[in-house]
Amino acid sequence: MKPLNRVAIVGVGLIGGSIGLAVRRAGLAREIVGVGRRETSLAIAKQRGAVDRVTTELADGVRQAELVIVCTPVDLVAGHVALAAAACQPETLITDAGSTKVQIVRDVEEAAQRENWPAGVRYLGSHPLAGDHNSGPEAARGDLFDERLVVVTPTAQTPDVDLHRLRRFWLALGASVVTMSADEHDRAIAATSHVPHLVAAVLAASTLKSDLALAASGWKDTTRVAAGDPQLWRQIVLANRDNVLAALGTVERNIAELRAALEHEDGDKLESLLREAKQNRDAVGS
Amino acid sequence: MKPLNRVAIVGVGLIGGSIGLAVRRAGLAREIVGVGRRETSLAIAKQRGAVDRVTTELADGVRQAELVIVCTPVDLVAGHVALAAAACQPETLITDAGSTKVQIVRDVEEAAQRENWPAGVRYLGSHPLAGDHNSGPEAARGDLFDERLVVVTPTAQTPDVDLHRLRRFWLALGASVVTMSADEHDRAIAATSHVPHLVAAVLAASTLKSDLALAASGWKDTTRVAAGDPQLWRQIVLANRDNVLAALGTVERNIAELRAALEHEDGDKLESLLREAKQNRDAVGS
Repeated sequence: MKPLNRVAIVGVGLIGGSIGLAVRRAGLAREIVGVGRRETSLAIAKQRGAVDRVTTELADGVRQAELVIVCTPVDLVAGHVALAAAACQPETLITDAGSTKVQIVRDVEEAAQRENWPAGVRYLGSHPLAGDHNSGPEAARGDLFDERLVVVTPTAQTPDVDLHRLRRFWLALGASVVTMSADEHDRAIAATSHVPHLVAAVLAASTLKSDLALAASGWKDTTRVAAGDPQLWRQIVLANRDNVLAALGTVERNIAELRAALEHEDGDKLESLLREAKQNRDAVGS
Repeated sequence: MKPLNRVAIVGVGLIGGSIGLAVRRAGLAREIVGVGRRETSLAIAKQRGAVDRVTTELADGVRQAELVIVCTPVDLVAGHVALAAAACQPETLITDAGSTKVQIVRDVEEAAQRENWPAGVRYLGSHPLAGDHNSGPEAARGDLFDERLVVVTPTAQTPDVDLHRLRRFWLALGASVVTMSADEHDRAIAATSHVPHLVAAVLAASTLKSDLALAASGWKDTTRVAAGDPQLWRQIVLANRDNVLAALGTVERNIAELRAALEHEDGDKLESLLREAKQNRDAVGS
């Protein structure tokens, strides 16, 4: 991929900071600009080499950037995309790293119609499946996207050239790329990420403090994601509420089925459920 | 700890094999005898150095052992303890590694009253919290118990000297030891191990095969234990049925509460649940 003159990253936490480090590692940009609200986070990101220049002024930061990546919490993404679009130069491509896509895409499209975006400024959604239970720029890593998957969610209006550019960008950061609709993304991610997160949180919260001394590797693995940022996850599950409720309903029904098998001491039924689970788990690998 | 002349391990899978390797590493026994049903497992255990001698005859294997550790599936433990007790020499201490304790202790006590155990032969329950999603003697490791916890479950009849011996044994294998009643153990382990296992299995089984490609680190952590042996876990949860049902009920109620908060878009409520979960998770550490 030919180096860009300037990449702007809005939000320099774990994901934004890691993108900066990975962009630098791949030599993808002559200058990486970090935009943020908090001076301390910006200072850490700069000190860690994730960005070359920092600013708290979004319009200033994205000016003359050829690629803008918005890495703020999901409820803020659409607003930041719109602000970036109004300030940046023609032909700039804007993407994001939000864990939900339908609401963001809808809000961005509404803003694009309402406002007068500069010619050629376009948005195309991304979701790098590369979370971590740590957060903030201090946890950023240049290899965070290595061998991870990034979902890109084009719409019927997305020009091929944008899809091509964005795909090459994530590939250069070490990731694999799949494309799917925002709808399909949000439905699947509810089942594979949002509901496991909520259920892990319930397991952790359901454990008596006096029993935590007995929490061994099984408990630790199963509840690990519950250490994630409560405010971020509140926004994520609210932004994908309908899909999360549907997938949570499936889990609740399957727990009820398992409970019934246990109540009736139906060992064969229990084992067949555990076997189905093992099959899915083994298919994914460590 | 003074080396024993002979330690017998009944069942040379992951746990039994690891005990053998750890006993050897600590120089705790002059001879380690492995007892098993399957010649192939015994051969692997011997080849890996977990045991010095193997036999499929339990009575033969435990003869003249000063310590017998029964590491078979929970539904077989009590029977194997009784068989070992009938065959071993006076003053032999028998323990086990079962994940549930109440039923095993009760069945063993009944057997002890029914049969005529040799003078001084005694049983004292153990549960090393050192599972792994792998199984079999090929997965055994001499460091499996390092910095892990072993619960020992004395009864009112347990002589102090036995508790002392067994505690020193597990400490020599690298573990920490806590003692509690079998009742208290089974209640707490239902919440910290058995229910997380079942819920992880439900999450894995609830995921569509076509969505597994999107399973990232969160899904992998949360469902990791679901790769465990379905047959073993069937027996474990059946053996601890009442406690598992009670702890599962708590989880179900907390999921319902979270669902209600999500349905009503009650972000504060959601966040407070996630915050409570994070507090418990952070208290345990990685």
